Amino acid sequence: MTADDAPSKSIDSDEPETAAADERIYHLDGELVPASEATVSVDDRGFRYGDGAFETLRAYGGQLYEWGAHADRLEATCDAIDLAHGLSRTELRQRIEATLAANDLVDAYVRLSITRGVQPGKLTPQPVTDPTVVVMVKPLPRGGLEGKPVWDGPATLQTVKRRRIPDDALPADAKTHNYLNGILARTELHDADEALVRDLEGYVAEGATSNVFFVDEEGLHTPTTETDVLPGITRRVVLDLARKAGIPTHEDWYRPIDVRQADEVFLTNTTWEVRPVATVDAIDLEGEYGDDDTTDGPPVTTLLAKLYDERVERRCYSD
Amino acid sequence: MTADDAPSKSIDSDEPETAAADERIYHLDGELVPASEATVSVDDRGFRYGDGAFETLRAYGGQLYEWGAHADRLEATCDAIDLAHGLSRTELRQRIEATLAANDLVDAYVRLSITRGVQPGKLTPQPVTDPTVVVMVKPLPRGGLEGKPVWDGPATLQTVKRRRIPDDALPADAKTHNYLNGILARTELHDADEALVRDLEGYVAEGATSNVFFVDEEGLHTPTTETDVLPGITRRVVLDLARKAGIPTHEDWYRPIDVRQADEVFLTNTTWEVRPVATVDAIDLEGEYGDDDTTDGPPVTTLLAKLYDERVERRCYSD
Repeated sequence: MTADDAPSKSIDSDEPETAAADERIYHLDGELVPASEATVSVDDRGFRYGDGAFETLRAYGGQLYEWGAHADRLEATCDAIDLAHGLSRTELRQRIEATLAANDLVDAYVRLSITRGVQPGKLTPQPVTDPTVVVMVKPLPRGGLEGKPVWDGPATLQTVKRRRIPDDALPADAKTHNYLNGILARTELHDADEALVRDLEGYVAEGATSNVFFVDEEGLHTPTTETDVLPGITRRVVLDLARKAGIPTHEDWYRPIDVRQADEVFLTNTTWEVRPVATVDAIDLEGEYGDDDTTDGPPVTTLLAKLYDERVERRCYSD
Repeated sequence: MTADDAPSKSIDSDEPETAAADERIYHLDGELVPASEATVSVDDRGFRYGDGAFETLRAYGGQLYEWGAHADRLEATCDAIDLAHGLSRTELRQRIEATLAANDLVDAYVRLSITRGVQPGKLTPQPVTDPTVVVMVKPLPRGGLEGKPVWDGPATLQTVKRRRIPDDALPADAKTHNYLNGILARTELHDADEALVRDLEGYVAEGATSNVFFVDEEGLHTPTTETDVLPGITRRVVLDLARKAGIPTHEDWYRPIDVRQADEVFLTNTTWEVRPVATVDAIDLEGEYGDDDTTDGPPVTTLLAKLYDERVERRCYSD
């Protein structure tokens, strides 16, 4: 039983569900190709070992949002796994832009993957001479002030048994094709949208594909990046927006009970942006704000979502 | 600097280096195809997330060695990652045998991979309706009493900083396409063939693609499967052979110092079989047995390698 059995139409960060994948154009190793023909060798290290790095981005109104931050993190991932692919940021950006143009997309989901490619036999990697570079795109709704979220309602969050891989075993700040940890966290869910994943010591780390925030009388809280958490781009943007709005922010070590007892909880990632949480471990958080009919929603979450939309609008949709 | 920079021609468990990959035939989703045409979609979850299971096997004289044990472990892996692929053992074995026949191979390396295939958008897996099933083969030398090892000399072993992923984060007994942990362990090596990987508490777990054994005056030792170690098929066979030969065996918790101070050290995996270790962290183990010119090699390792070869000979090469 997984979240997919639930009737929710919401989508997660890794890929929105859209029709007609075969009609789309992907970018593979320097060429635009129909998605149905975008294939890699079964000997590609990305397939054999998950030996690759990736980023999920959004294009809003034809602008690649937070490209610099995503390019920085991609570089950090490649450094962490010793994958010197030799492609410049400009080249990577041009490939993404060419893919968006080929699909006539201005509002889109983008996944950029770089793997170590096909190499002779050994598990031990050799210097990268022929990396596999893939750009996958899908249409998304407009963002910003006139946009609408990709999810169809607040998320339900469930604490899972599966723990986050510690930094000593896999670098926590690397976003790689080794994603089974998040998949196994998700498979534990019963009628919930996202897993609340703890580190080995029991501290809250993150969701399977999102960062976790909560609000109490002290202000806004999110787990510190000193724990085993992927430093989300949206996480950092939201923290900046909160500080500028005068909301006290705290990056610290938290237990699930802190999240459960919070006044508000929300999740962030590139695709979801700011997504409110309705329940944590079946505990209703919305009750704090009166009837659903009369509330404007959790106030801090609503404010931050609005500030986020304004920032997207300002950066991507204004001339 | 990695082991690949060293002049060693030895190969690791994951794939021997041989020429003419393009002339080989692989088995992909029910069809025999030229290796150069064996490709998977970039949307395959095996590529996107390393969301798949695999086994490495050897064929000796046309016999698939220890098929039952490998099929058991594959089943355990698929159970652990909730991958119900729907294929029977008989079907899988037939695909391997068809691939060996198509390549005219009787002595071979075999890799069998099963991934969750292409699924719509979500990270959360859906029931598997179209798994990706790949059989890859490569020629290997004959095994058994008249065979020769795939390595060209004893291994050098180096303790690395990278730690084994704990069972709470990824099931330790699952052999999956999430193999970055082993890759990162290997990238730390300086002129060594294999990494000695510890668990988070500092106990010896295993090599990146092998199990670790050592011999002292108490007998034969190898880390217990209660630590975060993949239960190797060759590991179990070697333990059985040792017990039958009257060698006291110990499965316990060990520190790198125990390995460094041992009389003999060896590594096991399906491809290497029993591979002696010459040095651990640059400490020479062979010195215990006199000059290289006069010694017959470390006695317990040599005995177990011979018993292993006899077993292969008996099971696979005798009529």
